[in-house]
Amino acid sequence: MQDALLALTKYWTDRGCLMVQPFNTEVGAGTMNPATILRVLGPEPWHVAYVEPSVRPDDARYGENPNRLQTHTQFQVILKPDPGDPQEIYLASLEALGIDIHAHDIRFVEDNWASPALGAWGLGWEVWLDGLEITQFTYFQQAGGQTLDPVSVEITYGIERIIMALQGVSHFKDIEYAPGISYGEAFGQSEYEMSRYYLDDADIDANRALFDTYAAEAERMIAERLPVPAHVYVLKCSHTFNVLDARGAISTTERAKAFARMRGLAREVSSLWTARREELGHPLGVVSRPGLDGDDAEPLLPDAPQAELSAAAPLLFEIGTEEMPPHEVTNTVAAVRSAVAEKLAATRLGHGTIEVVGTPRRIVVQVEAVEPREPDADRTVRGPRVEAAYDADGNPTKALLGFARGQGFEDLAELSTADFGGNQHVVVRVVDAGRGAVEVLSGLLADVVKELRSEKNMRWSDPALSFTRPIRWLTALLGDTVVPVRVSALVSGRTTRVHRTAPEPVVTVPSAAGYLEFLAGHDIVADPAVRRAAVVASASSLAASVGGVVETEAEAGLIDEITNLVEEPNALLGGFDTRYLELPEQILTTVMRKHQRYLPVRSADGALLPHFVAVANGSCEADAVRAGNEAVLRARYEDAAFFWRADLEVPLERFKEGLAKLTFEEKLGSMAERAARIETIAADLAKGVELSSDDVAALERAAALAKFDLSSQMVVELSSLAGVMAREYAVRAGESPAVGQALFEMELPRSTADALPVSAPGAVLALADRFDLLMAMFALGAKPTGSSDPFGLRRAALGVVRILRETPALSGVTVDGGLAVAADRLRAQGIEVSDAAVAAAREFVVARFAQQLRDEDVPADFVSAVLPGADAPGQAVATLSSLRARAGDASFRALVAALQRINRIVPAGTPASYDAGVLTEPAEQRLAEAVAALGDWSGRPVGDYAEAAGALAEPVNAFFDDILVMAEDPAVRASRLGLLATIAAHSPSAVDWAALDTALG
Amino acid sequence: MQDALLALTKYWTDRGCLMVQPFNTEVGAGTMNPATILRVLGPEPWHVAYVEPSVRPDDARYGENPNRLQTHTQFQVILKPDPGDPQEIYLASLEALGIDIHAHDIRFVEDNWASPALGAWGLGWEVWLDGLEITQFTYFQQAGGQTLDPVSVEITYGIERIIMALQGVSHFKDIEYAPGISYGEAFGQSEYEMSRYYLDDADIDANRALFDTYAAEAERMIAERLPVPAHVYVLKCSHTFNVLDARGAISTTERAKAFARMRGLAREVSSLWTARREELGHPLGVVSRPGLDGDDAEPLLPDAPQAELSAAAPLLFEIGTEEMPPHEVTNTVAAVRSAVAEKLAATRLGHGTIEVVGTPRRIVVQVEAVEPREPDADRTVRGPRVEAAYDADGNPTKALLGFARGQGFEDLAELSTADFGGNQHVVVRVVDAGRGAVEVLSGLLADVVKELRSEKNMRWSDPALSFTRPIRWLTALLGDTVVPVRVSALVSGRTTRVHRTAPEPVVTVPSAAGYLEFLAGHDIVADPAVRRAAVVASASSLAASVGGVVETEAEAGLIDEITNLVEEPNALLGGFDTRYLELPEQILTTVMRKHQRYLPVRSADGALLPHFVAVANGSCEADAVRAGNEAVLRARYEDAAFFWRADLEVPLERFKEGLAKLTFEEKLGSMAERAARIETIAADLAKGVELSSDDVAALERAAALAKFDLSSQMVVELSSLAGVMAREYAVRAGESPAVGQALFEMELPRSTADALPVSAPGAVLALADRFDLLMAMFALGAKPTGSSDPFGLRRAALGVVRILRETPALSGVTVDGGLAVAADRLRAQGIEVSDAAVAAAREFVVARFAQQLRDEDVPADFVSAVLPGADAPGQAVATLSSLRARAGDASFRALVAALQRINRIVPAGTPASYDAGVLTEPAEQRLAEAVAALGDWSGRPVGDYAEAAGALAEPVNAFFDDILVMAEDPAVRASRLGLLATIAAHSPSAVDWAALDTALG
Repeated sequence: MQDALLALTKYWTDRGCLMVQPFNTEVGAGTMNPATILRVLGPEPWHVAYVEPSVRPDDARYGENPNRLQTHTQFQVILKPDPGDPQEIYLASLEALGIDIHAHDIRFVEDNWASPALGAWGLGWEVWLDGLEITQFTYFQQAGGQTLDPVSVEITYGIERIIMALQGVSHFKDIEYAPGISYGEAFGQSEYEMSRYYLDDADIDANRALFDTYAAEAERMIAERLPVPAHVYVLKCSHTFNVLDARGAISTTERAKAFARMRGLAREVSSLWTARREELGHPLGVVSRPGLDGDDAEPLLPDAPQAELSAAAPLLFEIGTEEMPPHEVTNTVAAVRSAVAEKLAATRLGHGTIEVVGTPRRIVVQVEAVEPREPDADRTVRGPRVEAAYDADGNPTKALLGFARGQGFEDLAELSTADFGGNQHVVVRVVDAGRGAVEVLSGLLADVVKELRSEKNMRWSDPALSFTRPIRWLTALLGDTVVPVRVSALVSGRTTRVHRTAPEPVVTVPSAAGYLEFLAGHDIVADPAVRRAAVVASASSLAASVGGVVETEAEAGLIDEITNLVEEPNALLGGFDTRYLELPEQILTTVMRKHQRYLPVRSADGALLPHFVAVANGSCEADAVRAGNEAVLRARYEDAAFFWRADLEVPLERFKEGLAKLTFEEKLGSMAERAARIETIAADLAKGVELSSDDVAALERAAALAKFDLSSQMVVELSSLAGVMAREYAVRAGESPAVGQALFEMELPRSTADALPVSAPGAVLALADRFDLLMAMFALGAKPTGSSDPFGLRRAALGVVRILRETPALSGVTVDGGLAVAADRLRAQGIEVSDAAVAAAREFVVARFAQQLRDEDVPADFVSAVLPGADAPGQAVATLSSLRARAGDASFRALVAALQRINRIVPAGTPASYDAGVLTEPAEQRLAEAVAALGDWSGRPVGDYAEAAGALAEPVNAFFDDILVMAEDPAVRASRLGLLATIAAHSPSAVDWAALDTALG
Repeated sequence: MQDALLALTKYWTDRGCLMVQPFNTEVGAGTMNPATILRVLGPEPWHVAYVEPSVRPDDARYGENPNRLQTHTQFQVILKPDPGDPQEIYLASLEALGIDIHAHDIRFVEDNWASPALGAWGLGWEVWLDGLEITQFTYFQQAGGQTLDPVSVEITYGIERIIMALQGVSHFKDIEYAPGISYGEAFGQSEYEMSRYYLDDADIDANRALFDTYAAEAERMIAERLPVPAHVYVLKCSHTFNVLDARGAISTTERAKAFARMRGLAREVSSLWTARREELGHPLGVVSRPGLDGDDAEPLLPDAPQAELSAAAPLLFEIGTEEMPPHEVTNTVAAVRSAVAEKLAATRLGHGTIEVVGTPRRIVVQVEAVEPREPDADRTVRGPRVEAAYDADGNPTKALLGFARGQGFEDLAELSTADFGGNQHVVVRVVDAGRGAVEVLSGLLADVVKELRSEKNMRWSDPALSFTRPIRWLTALLGDTVVPVRVSALVSGRTTRVHRTAPEPVVTVPSAAGYLEFLAGHDIVADPAVRRAAVVASASSLAASVGGVVETEAEAGLIDEITNLVEEPNALLGGFDTRYLELPEQILTTVMRKHQRYLPVRSADGALLPHFVAVANGSCEADAVRAGNEAVLRARYEDAAFFWRADLEVPLERFKEGLAKLTFEEKLGSMAERAARIETIAADLAKGVELSSDDVAALERAAALAKFDLSSQMVVELSSLAGVMAREYAVRAGESPAVGQALFEMELPRSTADALPVSAPGAVLALADRFDLLMAMFALGAKPTGSSDPFGLRRAALGVVRILRETPALSGVTVDGGLAVAADRLRAQGIEVSDAAVAAAREFVVARFAQQLRDEDVPADFVSAVLPGADAPGQAVATLSSLRARAGDASFRALVAALQRINRIVPAGTPASYDAGVLTEPAEQRLAEAVAALGDWSGRPVGDYAEAAGALAEPVNAFFDDILVMAEDPAVRASRLGLLATIAAHSPSAVDWAALDTALG
């Protein structure tokens, strides 16, 4: 292991990195060392590499857990500025470690990093070596609340992990640290004793006092304008906080306060550092960007005309990137497709079909046949009016001469006249010369790149671009001619990049034609559909080889993701020890899917088999990669088994107590408080639901246990197993299956496609959970915006809607009712919940419902028509179907039209009452009778109303034909309006009749 | 610089060292890292290497001082057990750093290490590269109060220093840390800001609170039996203490308490660690000593008789060591000489002259001509008495037969008889066969080695030996035959080791004859006298080459030291910039002598020239070594100039205030308190001294400033300049030359040979200083023992004696008086001073005086004779000379004899009075008259007493001739005794007449 540290140090110092020492106060990660967190600020260059023993009290396990240490060893590299090819440099460092990157499957898998406490975030990847996360690779975008310019590349190697993989050992203690000495022999005692300190023995009051002292020193040093000692004390604060946290001594209030304090300090340190470096005149210089800081870039297109093609030619345009997140591949393919189509459409260039495909590293645009030039285009330009163009003598006026000159005409004979809105104007016919294809494409394609955006964008070495990941090359060929495209520092060429481990990673593209075949020749499958099919086919065939199947439908999302994690799928069958099958299946599949992106293999009857399919990228040594992936899975399963065993030792009550230590949200308190709210909300909701006595008992008990599993080690580690583990642990602790099921169902649905609770207790708990979440967050004003929905409120709202729609037993529960109960509970806890917040929450849920209906292809007006009843989505859906069933019924349509007519005529606020005695005309009397006969349907289901109200249509129409509503006699007028208002008021209020009218119209 | 760290890491890990990381809390030195201070404990092997940024708040200088940093970089190596050749391994590491060890002068210069706070000490060296200390090399003997077994070798490289030398830069900020980046650019801001924190801005109360919290956590962890976290908190304590100290916030009381607390904790951590490792079963194993732990060593001398030499042959016996401290070379040569002589004398082996010489690395014994064998020796053995040997029939008894058998005789005819004290015994004549020379020497020489001891002994890899430094080889040849000598793991051979950088460092010795020439052939001058002469000759000639001289007499001590720092002196002339000559000369020469062992070069008129003579060991590249030594001196002078300039900015009052921060001794308070005591003691003493008014003024002012310079940077750095700097700074601050002189003289004499104060104020202050020191230390019971005299009490006592002897103006001052005043001052400060302590202090001073006189070849009895007057050494010396002047005077001798006779006759306690009327005999009447005429001289000087009392001798003798003192009449007897008692009582009490009688006898 020490050789590895030395090899890395040598590798990076040989590449110009400064070597510094680990920091001499405890840090949680190499990032906290001032050599990173301060040095990434400001304009100075900084290339550094160092080892950082990273202390995480919370990870203390007495040295018992094979993969978890209170102090693990990071190797940290900062490259500032981004050198342009940090991934390639990084890969070579793996070779320096003795890793054969040609034999192994090395991938860059999306993993972003954010530390709100440091006001810092970045985008990047975890680097996988045969499925093992060995490195965190991040483009630092912000630190200390400051946007970083230049951007730094942060590369953090997890040394123990890498070494365990290289040495093939399964417990960190078994690492050969140095020849003849194992990690455990050298550091085992320290690991145990420091674990003891962090978990059991650290004095809580003493550490609280330390925290305050440190924070005060940090504040004083900030006041003295000394960012270096201030940062030291921020680090000490942070470590002390972590110690207290590991001791379970941090209440939610304290946590919130401590975080706020540390965040504030970190921000002040950062800005102070930046200011001080500036005062010191940036001792290390300032990063320059040759040719970009100035405007001295040479023109890309010479003034001389471009070589012209003689015939239509295919266009290839490739945007080469570092590994995009899988869903961004899909998004970007679509975005580029529409951008190119739109922009081409805005030209006069003939081009044929446009095809766009993509992989994680490239978006490939192929245009069938681009014409050599745009055709010329005629245009009539309007000049002055004829009267103003010639003077009395018929001689051209100055105005006319000026116009002609302006249009480039000397010969007035080329002018003619034309009529414009009845006025005769002088006009001239101008020809817009078509541009050459190269000229058109050069600008057009540059714009496509410049305008590229993703959900979450980053910056890198290029000062002018912003995208999901760095764009590193452009390939643009029209036929076999390069189309010059320049975007900031990028200039197109005729080369592309293939697999980084290929003998020639950069290859020349001979021609635009047949580019996908060309890529295929380099083992790159550019078309996602082809890749996906290959994944499905090979995974299925591998599964079949062990008598199993891969559930390609159920795993569609994962397969999509896998498809966009590779450029050439290379599926491998791996296995694991059958003893792990004793663990609950969801644990095993969750680990496979979420952590490893492996496809589970099942037998024909659905039982999990001890196999998996991993999909590597491109060619590699199958045995080595399989062995690596199997080892990773084994380690993860070993971890899980460790948690499983440990958790089974813990009584449910202790888990429940543990919730007090978990923050739910700073202002809202702990998870224990949330669980308590859910318990009482559920009890309240249950009053409105018919439940068997068994159900009542199960609900009560499950509510009392609500969320307990969140404090289990398993769920802390694998949060998606919340509910799953609750059921497992509860039943094993002797709870009834019904209680277990309710606890499990409480978390359903976890996604749009997920199952719903089937038991009534489960459904009630699930609703209570979601009402609490929604109301609590809206109370804080934490409405989701754009792509940001950290608490999953959209999912929660949709969950409420789905449960209420599809659980007839809960028909008595409404959105308003649930939110009101939830609001009451929050208020009881001392949290302010405004009426506006309740209304906003309701509106948010209704909007989700509406969206859901639209997504089900319900016409928007029908959706609007039923929204007044959205409070009870189940009934609203029933209303919707009865309305749609009558859409073809002429009398119903007439009725609706009549109701609309009424609405248009009757002023708002007109009382729904009339004096029948004043109504003397037959038509109005008939109508009044019909209204009286129908009675009031406003609160009743809409289903039968149409039929019952059918009798209204004719009298209403007759009324309108015969009667002048706005009679001169006020009493008569009032009664007539009142009669109509009564019709409206008596119609079912769960329908927006105006919207329905539009829908039917 | 980073390359150097990597090269060292690689070097040591290639040699089996574990690489660990710097500790992640602030440490003052790599030693504090648990990888050293805990791992050296117990029996487990541990080879480790690591970088340690070492934080010393006290060294913070805002980055301004060229050589001093609040954080400097150590590279630390621990080899446990001692591999047997750590120096050689270390030297190779320098080559790995790119240092050509053949070109440079690399030496191991005695430097021991002790940390009372850690309960730790070790012996070793600082390693010099061309005079620059680049490494601390220590054999760890104790840690945490535990004796270490096995012993660890600790090697600590001072990286900044080494790099500055290698790169030839003179400020640490100019070090090229990495290509293109200087140390200052990379770390300058941190150096400044952390200096600010440590020196100016650290909150004192906060750090006090931290100290207590840390200590309490350490205590709790000890109680929990967790030495690792406990140690972490001890380190935090230590750092916090250092911060407080740098802030000047530590009172002496606090310092004492803090040290005691930290020491206690460190000891508990150590013993706990040892216990825990044992409980854990010593995970790293236990160091084994093959062939030594068991008793399975093969016999060295086979039972078969040794090959015998046919004629006398010279013996060579060499004890090869690692570099001994210079004074130990001299001591050991002498000790070995007498041991060999003594042991040979105890044999019957003829051997001729014994010569012993030595260098730092070897003690060479040469014996002129060892006979091949001891001669046989006859011996008469006494048997039973004849009467018991034969029965009545003349037959041998059982007793006789038993005796004969016991002596190995069968034939009773070989028995004879002999007289023993008048009894006839049977005897037998036994011949003790002489042993062969090899057999004799083999054991004898082994004993010489086994019994070798030095003033301060250490242990190393050899489990059975103990000496000033490790003994690494034995060469023993008798003629050209190896004498087998085994001492523990050492076995003699015929090889010796020459310069480590020689092409062949280990060479075979052909024969004992001509060994010194053999060594000379390998550039080793084994005879110290020859080496010394070479040093003197070459230094003088080099000095002459620049028109200067080396004061070989004044520098005798330094030359002795230099002589024993090298095996072959290689003197080099170096120079320094004349601008440094502006500094006070003592600064320059102190740095040369104390730090560098350079000989100053002066002009004929005694002025310092900008040159020096350095003496390298063996051959090296003169220019490189000269340049190196010059650079070292330049850096040291630069440092000194920095202190000088800085100190000159400081008002004397601020220095004076600074004394409060300097601990004098834990129980006795700060240096400020000591200075205050001195001031009042001086005032008291001055009362008994006639002083001019100028002297009074100078004394008063100087006393008020006493010791101020101890808080100057210069004296903190170069403590031997105390007094020197006081004078310089005082005069420059506007004090009168007399005040400056008094402050300077106050520190005199600094050594036995040093000058004494010449001004009265200086002398008074010097006495006051020493009376305080002596009385204070004796009050604490801190009497020096054996070789341990940490406070220099011997020197102080001798100083008192010398000043009092040689300063006539102070004749009114006595030892008793001075100590009494000093005792009063201490008591006034609340320190208990017992009468016994005062008496012990007096006795100690008197004993020094007596020793001094004996060292001046005054016969012991004369010394004893004047000791009663030793309270006033000046007068005692006067007494002594007048006594000695009269030693040949017969009447004086008669007087003394008479006084002795009186003393013998008169019982103790006899009153010195008599009734003259009772005395009737003429002889007694005459004597009474003479006594009366002489009067009482008891308190008067002895000088004239002899003359005046001459008249007594005759009457006394006549009295004894004629008178029976013990008359029967009690009144007569009483009067006669009273008369004699009066004579005794009236004789000068400053003389011990009995001793004088013996002296004259």
